[in-house]
Parts: sequence; structure tokens; C-alpha cells
Amino acid sequence: MARRTGRRPGNPGTREAILDAARAAFADRGFDAASIRAIAAAAGVDPALVHHYFGSKDQLFLAAMEAPVDPRELLPGVLAGDPDAIGQRLVRTFLTVWDSPASAAGVALLRSAVSNEWTARLLREFVVTQVLRRVLDHLDVDPAELPLRGSLVATQLIGLAMMRYVIRLEPVASTAPETLVATVGPTVQRYLTAPLPALRDGAA
Amino acid sequence: MARRTGRRPGNPGTREAILDAARAAFADRGFDAASIRAIAAAAGVDPALVHHYFGSKDQLFLAAMEAPVDPRELLPGVLAGDPDAIGQRLVRTFLTVWDSPASAAGVALLRSAVSNEWTARLLREFVVTQVLRRVLDHLDVDPAELPLRGSLVATQLIGLAMMRYVIRLEPVASTAPETLVATVGPTVQRYLTAPLPALRDGAA
Repeated sequence: MARRTGRRPGNPGTREAILDAARAAFADRGFDAASIRAIAAAAGVDPALVHHYFGSKDQLFLAAMEAPVDPRELLPGVLAGDPDAIGQRLVRTFLTVWDSPASAAGVALLRSAVSNEWTARLLREFVVTQVLRRVLDHLDVDPAELPLRGSLVATQLIGLAMMRYVIRLEPVASTAPETLVATVGPTVQRYLTAPLPALRDGAA
Repeated sequence: MARRTGRRPGNPGTREAILDAARAAFADRGFDAASIRAIAAAAGVDPALVHHYFGSKDQLFLAAMEAPVDPRELLPGVLAGDPDAIGQRLVRTFLTVWDSPASAAGVALLRSAVSNEWTARLLREFVVTQVLRRVLDHLDVDPAELPLRGSLVATQLIGLAMMRYVIRLEPVASTAPETLVATVGPTVQRYLTAPLPALRDGAA
């Protein structure tokens, strides 16, 4: 969530105009190519005002996504410690967020992403730039393999969210989080760091 | 898809009334508890007419779901052969269906299931009774573990469909099917048959 400064928020119409321009830019061009300068121009404001309201480009993106949590606050705990248990810690953190009141926002985001191409693009950018990239940067694997490894992790985690919180398939919908950490964690770990022979065949 | 007989379809309003009653019954009571007799009564027709139009309860369910494929036709190929490669064959068959024109119906079904509790229930019943139960019945694992094993498989496959066909995250969206068979197949195999220590703790 965007951290607001202590100053008054200014014209709410201006904030909304910036967020609208940001959503369009992040969805159309992607997170990396979207610039604060271009977003400010599209909203008809000075870039300094965008920084003033929202802080960094990451923070603006989280505000535009209405992300209920900031991955930068959660990922250090995932990345610290035994690198062979990163998969389990990632699943545990994922479930902690989704088992919290934030899950309502997560379910809303998934619902929107499956029916709306624009939200799907924002979600894709969020998953890649705010979560996967930060995890993968931390790992000692061939950089050429990172995109497929990251998207395999995404398939497992999004599927877990879908089945536990949206479709609510039993028993996965109500089983203890640690059961899922122990069963799904090794899958995520394998996607992150295990040798994946298929990657060597050039098929990816 | 329901196989039609060679006879004329009769009053289309009657067919629709039966399908509406079937959707309500399957969503409300679940596949096992819903009876042809009760569905016929709700639609105001004789049970024999339901059988005449749709065949078995399985066929009526597939017609009510507007399922683009019949798992009974696909699963024998998954279940035949090396039991240690069932996961890979299940992923290969899943991708063959989803890479075909049937994927449009699959995406529509996923979209509907995330926004509509009723469709979510039908999808849940479809996954459990038409797919997972038939795969799991075939395996030599502790029956008490089957529900969690089945729902773990569902998390991975639904997540794969979400990321490849709905959210379209690259590279998983356009990578060769055999790359996914080789990387995701072992995950499904592990959920199906590998020892899952967490299951022994009573947490499931």
C-alpha cells in the first residue's frame, strides 16, 4: 500500500488522475518501461507531485494495483535463512497473507484479472516485478532459466489461491497451513532451484 | 458433451428446463446426492425423459456444465501404462485439451467460476467426481489421503490453466507443452503417489 506522507492529500481528483494514468501505463507498457515522467504527463501534473503523493515507482504501482500488502516488507523473511527451504517459507508467507483479511482484496484481484485483460496485465507485472524477480535475483541458478522457473512458481501459487480461497475445494480450502507448507513448499523449491532437465533442451 | 440420440430433440424448452434443474441440483446437493428423479421432478418431466435426452447422470452433468470434453474418454489414456508417469500423462492430456479449441470453453468456465459461487460449486464437483476420483481410484495409496492428494493436483493444474491461458504469463503461456510435461508432471506425480509426511501428522 502506498505510504502517505503526513501532509494533506491535496486534490483527490489529482490523486485519482495519477492512479488512472499509472494503471494505463503499467498495463500498456509494463512496469519497467512505464516512467513516472510519462505518467505525470498523462495525468497533467508535475512528476514531483507524483513522487510527493506516492513515493517511488514501486509504491505507485502498489497503489495503482490496490495491493493489500507490500512484497518488499514480506520477502526479506522469505529470502533469509536456509536457501533449501525458500519454497516452504514462500508458501508459508503466501498463506499468512491470504489467510489474513487481505485475502478479500486478493480474491477481488483474481476475479478482476480473469475477466479483465487490463487487470490481468497488471497482475502479471505485479507477480513478475514485485515478487518473482526479487526471489529469483536471490538464487544461484542460470539466469536464462529464471523466467520459466518464476512462471512455474506462479502457476502453483495462483492455483493454490484459486482452490483454497476462490473455488474452495476441500480439503485444501480448510487444511492447516503447515500441511500445505510441507506439501506445496517442496514443489516451489523444486521450481526455484532443482535441475529442470527440460530447460536444457532449448524447449523453453 | 452430451451425446444426443438420433431422435428429434423434442421441445427445446424441456431440455433447458432439465438442464436448469440439473445445474441447481448439482450445485446445491453435489453430484453424488443429486438424483435424476429429483431433477426430473424439479423440471416437471418424467425421469425417463431425462435419460432419453441426456443418458446417464454423468452425461447430464457434463451437459449441464457445458463441458467441452468428456473426461471418461480422455482418462483411460492417462491411466494406462507406467504408474510412475501418470503425472506426466495427466499434464500432457490436460495441455492437449487446453491447447485445443476447447480452451475457449475452459477459460469461460474459469471466468464464471471465480465470479459466481454457483459455477464454482459445479466446477468443484466436476473436478472431484469426473476427473480426480477416477484418477485416484486407480492408485495404490491410502484412501484417507486421497482427498488432499486430489486437491493438491487440482491446485497445480488450475494454476497452470490460469497462468497459461487466462493471465498469460510468459514464458509459461507459450512454452512447448513437453517442457511443461517434464517440469509440472513430476509435481502432479508427487501429489498423487509420493509419501507426503504432512499427511501422517493428522493435520489433513
